[in-house]
Amino acid sequence: MIIILKPNARPADAKAIMKKISRVGLKPLYLPGVERIVLGAIGDERILRDLNLESEPMVDVIKPILSPYKLVSREMHPEDTLIDIEGIQIGDSNFTVIAGPCSVEDRRQIMETARIVKQYGAVLLRGGVFKPRSSPYSFQGLGEEGFKLLKEASEQYRIPTVTEILDEGDLVMADQYVSVLQIGARNMQNFRLLKAVGKSTKPVLLKRGMSSTIEELLLAAEYIYYEGNHNIILCERGIRTFETATRNTLDLNAVAYLKLKTHLPVFVDPSHGTGIKELISPMARAAAACGADGLLVEVHVNPREALSDGYQSLDEAEFAEFMTGLDPFVRAAGKSFNSGQGE
Amino acid sequence: MIIILKPNARPADAKAIMKKISRVGLKPLYLPGVERIVLGAIGDERILRDLNLESEPMVDVIKPILSPYKLVSREMHPEDTLIDIEGIQIGDSNFTVIAGPCSVEDRRQIMETARIVKQYGAVLLRGGVFKPRSSPYSFQGLGEEGFKLLKEASEQYRIPTVTEILDEGDLVMADQYVSVLQIGARNMQNFRLLKAVGKSTKPVLLKRGMSSTIEELLLAAEYIYYEGNHNIILCERGIRTFETATRNTLDLNAVAYLKLKTHLPVFVDPSHGTGIKELISPMARAAAACGADGLLVEVHVNPREALSDGYQSLDEAEFAEFMTGLDPFVRAAGKSFNSGQGE
Amino acid sequence: MIIILKPNARPADAKAIMKKISRVGLKPLYLPGVERIVLGAIGDERILRDLNLESEPMVDVIKPILSPYKLVSREMHPEDTLIDIEGIQIGDSNFTVIAGPCSVEDRRQIMETARIVKQYGAVLLRGGVFKPRSSPYSFQGLGEEGFKLLKEASEQYRIPTVTEILDEGDLVMADQYVSVLQIGARNMQNFRLLKAVGKSTKPVLLKRGMSSTIEELLLAAEYIYYEGNHNIILCERGIRTFETATRNTLDLNAVAYLKLKTHLPVFVDPSHGTGIKELISPMARAAAACGADGLLVEVHVNPREALSDGYQSLDEAEFAEFMTGLDPFVRAAGKSFNSGQGE
Amino acid sequence: MIIILKPNARPADAKAIMKKISRVGLKPLYLPGVERIVLGAIGDERILRDLNLESEPMVDVIKPILSPYKLVSREMHPEDTLIDIEGIQIGDSNFTVIAGPCSVEDRRQIMETARIVKQYGAVLLRGGVFKPRSSPYSFQGLGEEGFKLLKEASEQYRIPTVTEILDEGDLVMADQYVSVLQIGARNMQNFRLLKAVGKSTKPVLLKRGMSSTIEELLLAAEYIYYEGNHNIILCERGIRTFETATRNTLDLNAVAYLKLKTHLPVFVDPSHGTGIKELISPMARAAAACGADGLLVEVHVNPREALSDGYQSLDEAEFAEFMTGLDPFVRAAGKSFNSGQGE
Repeated sequence: MIIILKPNARPADAKAIMKKISRVGLKPLYLPGVERIVLGAIGDERILRDLNLESEPMVDVIKPILSPYKLVSREMHPEDTLIDIEGIQIGDSNFTVIAGPCSVEDRRQIMETARIVKQYGAVLLRGGVFKPRSSPYSFQGLGEEGFKLLKEASEQYRIPTVTEILDEGDLVMADQYVSVLQIGARNMQNFRLLKAVGKSTKPVLLKRGMSSTIEELLLAAEYIYYEGNHNIILCERGIRTFETATRNTLDLNAVAYLKLKTHLPVFVDPSHGTGIKELISPMARAAAACGADGLLVEVHVNPREALSDGYQSLDEAEFAEFMTGLDPFVRAAGKSFNSGQGE
Repeated sequence: MIIILKPNARPADAKAIMKKISRVGLKPLYLPGVERIVLGAIGDERILRDLNLESEPMVDVIKPILSPYKLVSREMHPEDTLIDIEGIQIGDSNFTVIAGPCSVEDRRQIMETARIVKQYGAVLLRGGVFKPRSSPYSFQGLGEEGFKLLKEASEQYRIPTVTEILDEGDLVMADQYVSVLQIGARNMQNFRLLKAVGKSTKPVLLKRGMSSTIEELLLAAEYIYYEGNHNIILCERGIRTFETATRNTLDLNAVAYLKLKTHLPVFVDPSHGTGIKELISPMARAAAACGADGLLVEVHVNPREALSDGYQSLDEAEFAEFMTGLDPFVRAAGKSFNSGQGE
Repeated sequence: MIIILKPNARPADAKAIMKKISRVGLKPLYLPGVERIVLGAIGDERILRDLNLESEPMVDVIKPILSPYKLVSREMHPEDTLIDIEGIQIGDSNFTVIAGPCSVEDRRQIMETARIVKQYGAVLLRGGVFKPRSSPYSFQGLGEEGFKLLKEASEQYRIPTVTEILDEGDLVMADQYVSVLQIGARNMQNFRLLKAVGKSTKPVLLKRGMSSTIEELLLAAEYIYYEGNHNIILCERGIRTFETATRNTLDLNAVAYLKLKTHLPVFVDPSHGTGIKELISPMARAAAACGADGLLVEVHVNPREALSDGYQSLDEAEFAEFMTGLDPFVRAAGKSFNSGQGE
Repeated sequence: MIIILKPNARPADAKAIMKKISRVGLKPLYLPGVERIVLGAIGDERILRDLNLESEPMVDVIKPILSPYKLVSREMHPEDTLIDIEGIQIGDSNFTVIAGPCSVEDRRQIMETARIVKQYGAVLLRGGVFKPRSSPYSFQGLGEEGFKLLKEASEQYRIPTVTEILDEGDLVMADQYVSVLQIGARNMQNFRLLKAVGKSTKPVLLKRGMSSTIEELLLAAEYIYYEGNHNIILCERGIRTFETATRNTLDLNAVAYLKLKTHLPVFVDPSHGTGIKELISPMARAAAACGADGLLVEVHVNPREALSDGYQSLDEAEFAEFMTGLDPFVRAAGKSFNSGQGE
């Protein structure tokens, strides 16, 4: 950690801070510059952070040397993490497609959609039962009834399921009904929820918050990992920028960057990441090309009648074409579609 | 609502959509343009939204006419909402200062800080007992012990309290100990929490999410209002932009804009809004000047020893000076510091 | 164009505005809603814009129906524009790589780099002679000397060149020395420069401004097109967002979106778009996958000694590997590397 | 400067870099950490920057200690710079209002507007003669004819003038006609123009680019200062963020921050900074409250007929009220309206 003092700091100020650093067992360094005094501290920066040196009146700026996350970092764990979801392997040369409707709406809808996604190559079924919606006047999801329908579809089509949970209290119910717990973008920094799923035995799909930095995403994953759950899939789903032509700005830089920095698998959600049906296919291809391990795509048996996100959902014919068009890019990336079969 | 069809839409497509509009009891309009067919729909747009017309294949763009919030809108309710917090009036010509530490850390700290904030003119004491922190390695708050200390300080210095709650489950406990429930920036779109506090009898301080639009803030307030709790204070606390010199970009435009659009009181948090001690005072003055009804300021008996946010907390001397320096601007705005006395 | 009046507007206000609309020869529509009066205007919105109806005191919001650009729009011109640069065809199934150093630094550097880029498959050589740099203390480019070196390299390796010009005055010189005129991100809205290159016979490579919307990029292209120069290549090079892990956020959504909305070819600059050497290759592949027509890549014979952007420049071995790794994605996209040969 | 090496860097890599640092006459420091090797360099960082150490393969991140600007920094020059514009003093306890139309449109308009702004207390007249417009179909300004009208108004009402110039070539003409040269937001990083006005004897009003950081604004000022022109007024005019309710997000944090970091006067443009007439007055007051030295406000004798920006221009009655309402805030800030008289 590098500590830059204010222009008017004197050697005595530096000394006092160095004492604080020594007291926690780290080694302080004194680096008097031409215009400023700079201090260094060698050792675990996580310890140093507890000193809150930024509150010292003579400290101008603190520059950390190490990333604040550790367990999820590739530096500490160079090998890719592979995740097993009921026999389905995530990561490595498997390119995995998770598909399904934004919300579970009724029995016919989820059964039909499950059939479609399974038929054309998705190996996990997504579907929301609790919908966080910006307006209190919008459809809010079916709740437990939705869980049951999702489970029925899962059993009939032999396809594991992914659904979003909104708080700790949902965990018990989710545990009975679904295979993967999704943390939505709005909850990426709901630390209590992160801790709760960290104690679960179910794999977690963690979506990036729409204004969260990559570092914050990794820190959110660190929360889960730290509690003992190591089966975490990260998901880029678009960030909020000044551009309004698309619903979000899909940050594919983040995918390639995450693959450098962490051993966890990285997925992409081109449906929310664009909000425009015509862009879903090109962005899915781009995701495969830049190293993503899989996708999360909205599919609906009848998008025109969807209660949410219909405009960005693919129907049967569109999803079939989507998968066919995606295949050459998955192969160019040296991968192949996950068959959903264990070895 | 204005519905712009795609360039290749034909009159038959328009007709089908108009039928859908008629079916929900609204009046459709047919506006054939030179290059595009445009449709209109007259009536309550909230009904229309349920049609999900954006999912229609021939619909290009939907442009709403009315704002999606209603109950919190000044159009529906032109008079300012005044809020009574245990006899303290928020709004009108009262300029209210809420102050206190980021977190309740120990008995001495909160008692001493309560004394300071009360002495120099704050009429509400803030203090976090649950701290949402980006890193799992940072201090996370005292929990119930913190609530008790806060209550003790409240009673000793006769000053009502504000604290953040993180989920529905915290409500029962918070109800016994504090006067105002704070929804933090990260939870602004935690809709389940919004609904829960909407059913509470305690006033709510709702902070804007760091990447939430003003419209989303008003929709979040609408959730609470809709459930029956009309005592909502909005709080601008800085948004996330490309600028990194300051911790956030304090959006004072939002304050003036909110005063136009809603009848709810609007506060500003210049501590989080800047993250730099030297900017707190100028931004507090600016907030008073552009029409804010009050402030939320971090004060700590000893910022150097603070477990969180010490670098942006004022100490006793700084807070005294802060209040003195602010006074002429409050007066220029035609207001005066809230005395904390009922009439 | 849809014109929403303020809540307190009366029918007389509407009437006055409708008169203004009629006066310019367009057809006004009166659409009285439940809560607001809405007006429409049928006809060329570009005429309407001159009325500055947003300045009318009773007008609340104006919602245009048509995009403000026209000539560059695919609606007006459905076929892709192909561009011929000294016999090299840009667009269609040709995937074109433009490569070279950030700046022309000296004879040896540009000659060697030209050799490298040509050898591994680039068909155009880039190289800056005027460098816009944030700090007055940084290297500013060689000026005319740079033009001469660039031309020499172009002739020796039979490879046309692209260079950035900064204002109208540079055009005369550039005309003698280079094949394609580049408008840099900082100049995307230098309208005088846009008009000047609009009158040139040289093709133009127009880079998106780092905080420009896609619509503004298309309007900038419209300026050039309108003056008579139809040979415009658009280039996405990353936008400025809150994310600081990467130099910019490469907006590949914009590529797919532009391919829908305009007939002009679209390139991507993964060097500036990421600012991190390890991300250049994955982002180049992603660009090819989502429909880009080509790339602009920084290559330098010796990046460690580069006077600018060395950290994001590929050396010979890296560029060779870059091209080999990119090839399967270009093929998956149904294209092949531009051979640089006319038919 | 702090140089963090990659995890796999060896002592020999560190040694090679230290040699480079020594070679330019600076003192290298070796700081071996637990997980990383860190290097320091003591001395003028501007020299160090020429080494382009970020291009070294083993360098991970460079963290500068000093700000990259120097001449405009308050550290180097603690006293406020006062600027004299034809006898009018800018800075210190003078609060200066510059007002006028977006564009000079015709003789009557500019004469009448000049009368208004002078009458109610503005001491400088603004008015554009070249208008950079996003669309080629919009009004582009009167050019030299505009300069002449501006000069006529200036002489008749004895009020110096400010106008924007777009490139070096405009300087000769501007020199004859106006008192202050404005660099617009889109040209803040037009370094050639910055250098040109740096050689002029006229004061410069430098507007912040809409996606420029505060540091980039100060570097742009450094360009001008470095060339010899020290009479620079900085102007915050709103930045581009995700918020679309207002035209821009006025960043008043930047004003208070700039007052800490630079000795140059800082103005605010609440017209462009909000784009909403009702917000101009509150934001002007906020600007005065947080330490601005003056304002740039759009005033038009008849906003309804304005050829540009009418919706954000004040008319005579509105400007009168604006000034009256602003006065108490200027006084609260310990300043008074600039009388336009020399001492």
